[in-house]
Amino acid sequence: MAVGLEVLQNYHPVSGIRIGIAQAGIKYENRNDLVIFELAEGSRVSGVFTLNAFCAAPVQIAKKHLAEADIRYLVINTGNANAGTGPQGMIDALATCAELATLAKVELNQVLPFSTGVIGELLPMDKLLAGLSPALSNVSNNAWPTAAEGIMTTDTLPKGYSQKLEVAAGETISISGISKGSGMIMPNMATMLAYLTTDAVIAKPLLDVMCKELADKSFNRVTVDGDTSTNDSCILIATAQADMTEISSKDDSRYPAIFNALLEAFMVLSHAIVRDGEGATKFVTMEVQQASSVQEALDVAYTVAHSPLVKTALFACDANWGRILAAVGRAGVKDMVLEDIDIYLDDVCIVKSGGRADSYTEEAGAAIFAQAEITISIRLGRGVVTEKVWTTDLSHDYVSINADYRS
Amino acid sequence: MAVGLEVLQNYHPVSGIRIGIAQAGIKYENRNDLVIFELAEGSRVSGVFTLNAFCAAPVQIAKKHLAEADIRYLVINTGNANAGTGPQGMIDALATCAELATLAKVELNQVLPFSTGVIGELLPMDKLLAGLSPALSNVSNNAWPTAAEGIMTTDTLPKGYSQKLEVAAGETISISGISKGSGMIMPNMATMLAYLTTDAVIAKPLLDVMCKELADKSFNRVTVDGDTSTNDSCILIATAQADMTEISSKDDSRYPAIFNALLEAFMVLSHAIVRDGEGATKFVTMEVQQASSVQEALDVAYTVAHSPLVKTALFACDANWGRILAAVGRAGVKDMVLEDIDIYLDDVCIVKSGGRADSYTEEAGAAIFAQAEITISIRLGRGVVTEKVWTTDLSHDYVSINADYRS
Repeated sequence: MAVGLEVLQNYHPVSGIRIGIAQAGIKYENRNDLVIFELAEGSRVSGVFTLNAFCAAPVQIAKKHLAEADIRYLVINTGNANAGTGPQGMIDALATCAELATLAKVELNQVLPFSTGVIGELLPMDKLLAGLSPALSNVSNNAWPTAAEGIMTTDTLPKGYSQKLEVAAGETISISGISKGSGMIMPNMATMLAYLTTDAVIAKPLLDVMCKELADKSFNRVTVDGDTSTNDSCILIATAQADMTEISSKDDSRYPAIFNALLEAFMVLSHAIVRDGEGATKFVTMEVQQASSVQEALDVAYTVAHSPLVKTALFACDANWGRILAAVGRAGVKDMVLEDIDIYLDDVCIVKSGGRADSYTEEAGAAIFAQAEITISIRLGRGVVTEKVWTTDLSHDYVSINADYRS
Repeated sequence: MAVGLEVLQNYHPVSGIRIGIAQAGIKYENRNDLVIFELAEGSRVSGVFTLNAFCAAPVQIAKKHLAEADIRYLVINTGNANAGTGPQGMIDALATCAELATLAKVELNQVLPFSTGVIGELLPMDKLLAGLSPALSNVSNNAWPTAAEGIMTTDTLPKGYSQKLEVAAGETISISGISKGSGMIMPNMATMLAYLTTDAVIAKPLLDVMCKELADKSFNRVTVDGDTSTNDSCILIATAQADMTEISSKDDSRYPAIFNALLEAFMVLSHAIVRDGEGATKFVTMEVQQASSVQEALDVAYTVAHSPLVKTALFACDANWGRILAAVGRAGVKDMVLEDIDIYLDDVCIVKSGGRADSYTEEAGAAIFAQAEITISIRLGRGVVTEKVWTTDLSHDYVSINADYRS
C-alpha cells in the first residue's frame, strides 16, 4: 500500500539513451529481469554508491570502470545481487561486462554492471549471458515504462520521473529516470537503484559535483528502516545530445534551472522508494531546524526517524510527543537544552520550550496524524541549519513482510 | 510472553534495608504504586543514570543529592514519570523528598526520588504526599516481592535477584535486588529502574567504581528497541551491616568474590528487562569478538542488535545471515574487510571468511533459530576485544503494544 505513489505512463525520450530488456530467467521465468542502457558516444556519467563496508562485486566493478573509462552501457539484473559471493562474484560481474562489450563492440570497462536480489548465491551466468543479446537487439528510446518494471524486486509499483524544460531561449532539455527499492528487505532484494538521464550538455567534472550534491539532498536522506544495502547505486547520465553549449560551471546562468529540475527528479525518485516502503502507511518529512551544524541536524533527524517507538506511534496515528522528545534527547547532541526545544506537526505547535504547548489539543494532533503525509519539525534553538530526511511508519505489515519471507 | 523469566519468591533480607509500600492512587486505584527504601545509617550509595540529554526532574535531584549527602531513603512512584514537567517538576520532586525527610527526621538531600510512568503530566502531589506516611509506617525487611511488583509499569512479571555467599571465612554477605522495565514504551512508562543492595562493607569510592563497571557490563549493554528513557536509574547500596572489615580496594582478596556476585545480580536483573521486552519471543546474546577496540565492538553489536531486519528475521526463526552481514557492514567501522568476517549461531559457523560457510546447512541454522535463547557471535578478525549486548526480536506484539497504547 504505497503512500501517494502514481505510476508514470508517459516518459519523454532522452536523446542518446536507448533501453533494451530481456527475460533471462535469473530467478523467475517469464519476467523482465535484465535491463540494458545504451548511451550515445560522448555521454558523461556520474555515480554515487553504498557506504556499506561490504559492497557487492558489481558495485566494486562499477566504481572502477566509472573512474577509468567513458561509459557506453549499463547492465542491470534482478533476482540475484551478486553480493557475498567472493572472488567468483567479481569474475562473474566482469564476465557480464566482457560479454556485453564484445556484443556491442566497446571496451570491457565501458560497461557498468548492477545486480539486485538475493545475496550469497552465485549468478546463473549461462542464463544471464544468454539474455544479453536479446536485450541488446531490442533497444529503443521508448522502453522506459518496461524498464521501470524490469528493475523492480519487492517494489509494489514502478517508479519513474520525466520532464522537459527550456533552460534558455531555444535550449530545451529532457530528463527521464527510474528507481527501485522499498526498504532493505529480503537480504538486499530491495537494494536502492536509480538511473537518471538527461540530454543536457554538462561537463563531466560539474556533473560529478552535481550528482553528489543531488544525492545528498535526496537518496542520502531517505530511510525506511536504517538498513543500507550492499548494492545501492545512483547513476546520473548526461548524453550531451541537446542543442546547447556545454555547461561547465555553477556560474552558468542556466545552471540553477538545470540543477533544480534534476533535484526534482532526484527528490521524486528517492521519495518514491519511501512511499513504497515496506508496509508503509505514512510518508513522513522529518525536519530539524535551528541546528548548529548539518551533522547535529542529521543526528537528531535520523534518531527520531529510526525510533521504533516514534514509528509505531505514527502507524497508530498517535501524536505522541513524549516519544519524539525522548528520541531527540538521546541523539547524542552535546549540551542540548530541553527548554529550547519546540516541535511542530505540520503547522501545529505540539511542544513549546520542552513541554506540551498550551495551545495544543489532542484533537489537532490526532487530525494531523490521521493524514497519510506529515511533516514533523523539530526546532533545536541552537543555530540556523535546517536538514530534512524522509521516512515511514512501522506497521504490522513491515513485520509480516520481513518475518514471513523465505518460505 | 517473557522469555525464560521466573518470579522470585524468596529473598534474603539484607541487614540495614527496610522497604515500605503504599497505594497512593497516583494513576490507578488499589495498586501498590509507592515504594520506600529505608537505609541504615552508614550505608553507602552509588548510582548510574540515563544519558538522555533530557533527564527527568527526579533524576536531576537524585544525582545532586547523591553527590551531596549520605543517603537514608529512596522513594519511588509509578504511574507518572515527572518528566517534561519543567520547573514545577523540580519543585514536586523536591517537595516529595522534603515531606519524607520531615516524616523520617533526616535531611532533605538524604532522600533520592524516582518516578516512572507517563511523561508530560504533573505529579498528583496531594496523593503522592499522602502515601508517604502509610508507606513509612509499614517498612519491613521482607517486603521484597511486593516491592518488585510495586515498581512495575508495563512489565508482565516482577524481576528480582537474591543470593547469600561467604566471601571469606566467617564473612557472609547477602545481596538482594529488584528491577523493572520492558523496552521504552508508553512514553517512558517502561523506564529502566534497578535497586541492588548488599550488607557488605564496601568503601564508598570503591562502590562508585564498582557500580559504574557493573552497570557497563549489564544495564548499559541491554537494548530492546534502542530507545533510552529520560528516567533510567540504577542504584547500588552497601549498608555496611555485615560482620566484616571494610573492603576499600580491588586488591582485597575478597574483592573478586564480591564483584562477581554483584555482577551476577546486575546481569540477572538487566537481562530480566530484555526477557520481558515488548513482545519478545527471543533472548539474544549479540557477541562481537576480535574487535580492535571496545567502541568498534559495541558499534557492530548495537547496529546488528537494532537492525529491524535482523530482529524480524529472529522473530521469524529465519537464520538470515545476509541481514546480519549487511548490518555489520553499515556499522561505520573503518577499513573492515569482508573476507575477515566469521559469524556463528551458538556453536554453528554460518559465515566463514565473509561468505556462507561450506559446512553450514539450513537445517542447522533453523534448529538454532527455533530456540528461545540464541547467541550470535560475530568475529571481525581485527583484534582481541570482545563485547556483548543483549536484545530481543521484533514481533507483531511489539507493534501492537506500542501502536495500540493510549486508549
